[in-house]
Amino acid sequence: MPTALRVREVGPRDGLQPEAPLAVRDRLELIGALAGAGLHDIEAVAFVSPRAVPAMADAAEVVAGLPGGGVTWWALVPNVKGAALAAAAGVDHLTVTVSVSETYSMRNVGMTTAESMEAALTIAAAAPTVDVVLSCAFGSPYEGEIAPDAVARLAERCRDAGASVTLADTTGVATPRRIADVLDLVGDQIGLHLHDTRGTALVNAYAAMERGVSRFDTAVGGLGGSPFAAGAGGNLATEDLVHLCDDLGVTTGVDLDALLDASALVARLVGRAVPSRVAAAGPRSRLAGSDG
Amino acid sequence: MPTALRVREVGPRDGLQPEAPLAVRDRLELIGALAGAGLHDIEAVAFVSPRAVPAMADAAEVVAGLPGGGVTWWALVPNVKGAALAAAAGVDHLTVTVSVSETYSMRNVGMTTAESMEAALTIAAAAPTVDVVLSCAFGSPYEGEIAPDAVARLAERCRDAGASVTLADTTGVATPRRIADVLDLVGDQIGLHLHDTRGTALVNAYAAMERGVSRFDTAVGGLGGSPFAAGAGGNLATEDLVHLCDDLGVTTGVDLDALLDASALVARLVGRAVPSRVAAAGPRSRLAGSDG
Repeated sequence: MPTALRVREVGPRDGLQPEAPLAVRDRLELIGALAGAGLHDIEAVAFVSPRAVPAMADAAEVVAGLPGGGVTWWALVPNVKGAALAAAAGVDHLTVTVSVSETYSMRNVGMTTAESMEAALTIAAAAPTVDVVLSCAFGSPYEGEIAPDAVARLAERCRDAGASVTLADTTGVATPRRIADVLDLVGDQIGLHLHDTRGTALVNAYAAMERGVSRFDTAVGGLGGSPFAAGAGGNLATEDLVHLCDDLGVTTGVDLDALLDASALVARLVGRAVPSRVAAAGPRSRLAGSDG
Repeated sequence: MPTALRVREVGPRDGLQPEAPLAVRDRLELIGALAGAGLHDIEAVAFVSPRAVPAMADAAEVVAGLPGGGVTWWALVPNVKGAALAAAAGVDHLTVTVSVSETYSMRNVGMTTAESMEAALTIAAAAPTVDVVLSCAFGSPYEGEIAPDAVARLAERCRDAGASVTLADTTGVATPRRIADVLDLVGDQIGLHLHDTRGTALVNAYAAMERGVSRFDTAVGGLGGSPFAAGAGGNLATEDLVHLCDDLGVTTGVDLDALLDASALVARLVGRAVPSRVAAAGPRSRLAGSDG
């Protein structure tokens, strides 16, 4: 079990992308609340087509309004054009998605996995910091099983190109055993991006932590999911992971009470309760007489 | 990690007790579906006051209609009178709840923990098989922390009296660390009865399995919760645990597809979607090309 995690908050991007568009000032208020809660890595925007993903419009305007204070700001870019827009806006930490599932890749970005990987490596060659997110790494809604060695081969190419790797359970089909099967080949120097479609996100995170994984993507409230993957389900909720880590004595740097305020804010902004059960029930640290 | 679990289905009791009362024939249809799915231990009824818990009325009538076929039928009894009613109905496997939380005990049954334990031991002395369920074993909504050695002392008294012990996380405040703290003192020869109030039921079950626990209470659909404990949250869903175990290669004896049919039945009976996310999203074994 690691002593500390590096949590990348993806709520302003993955969390909001399937929602009705919010005003830039509301997105910035949310981002400020998350930074204020102690999140040091935040995926704030995506440089994607506003026609395809209306909620991600005005990325440059959001970037221009980001607060200072030592946060590493990330932007998702789908292609070389998006990387150029991110560079122009001054973002130098990029996430690029490559789907291990051929069918998912064709449906989502109209490219084969090999073509998508070439595009990612082109971006990695030019940008200062690129994290390649390998989607459907634990299974595909179209092909079912994904061979762990296919994941490992793609991960190796990313690393050879100087990029870091995050494995995404895009549609929530991972289990502790699948996590183990993949980590056995890929190692623990990866990030995990988990979705809770089948209620397994937290147990998957725990099993991965036991194997030494210390880098996670999470979204405040447990919002999110691809607008292009039906039934993707929300992300692992940031507050659920922090709640668990606080009790395990694993440092995240996040203040859970401040984070729950940010969770309440995003619930107001999207106009409904968020999926996180810690947000709904309150953390165990609020029990009378609790030691925290 | 155990190779097999003994799963006690408590849906017909804990799952239905906070719901509007169902007809006896509907309760029996549900019980039959659960038995048909391979659940070999089923808590079918509670011999409690029908004024206090209307959904648990007509216990003797339900017992009279139970199917044959090698299932161990359990009944919850709150006191000696309930134990007598269970015996008269022909049920010889009893669960008796004793709350480790003094305040919870006083509010729930009007007895101190010591008085409640005396009543349980009186029942254990007379009935063939008694499982004492120690509620609030990982924390109390009123007192917060519960000392693990208080749990251990009560567990020892139960075992000395020939009863088995189940530890209940009545309001969903357990975490893997709390589980470990208690199991360090109580050992792994206990059952666990987990609630998912804070989304931690499955990770708690996994952490307990890693420590050798092989006996679990679950409720189909993840329904349930004490009608006397506000915000108790539903039980660990049977299908969520079976889904995890199937993938881990841990035997439960339960057919997940048949169980999901029972889950769909209980959703129809209570008139709304159940909390289980596996029930909502379908198991990963239904992915195209899955190996199961």
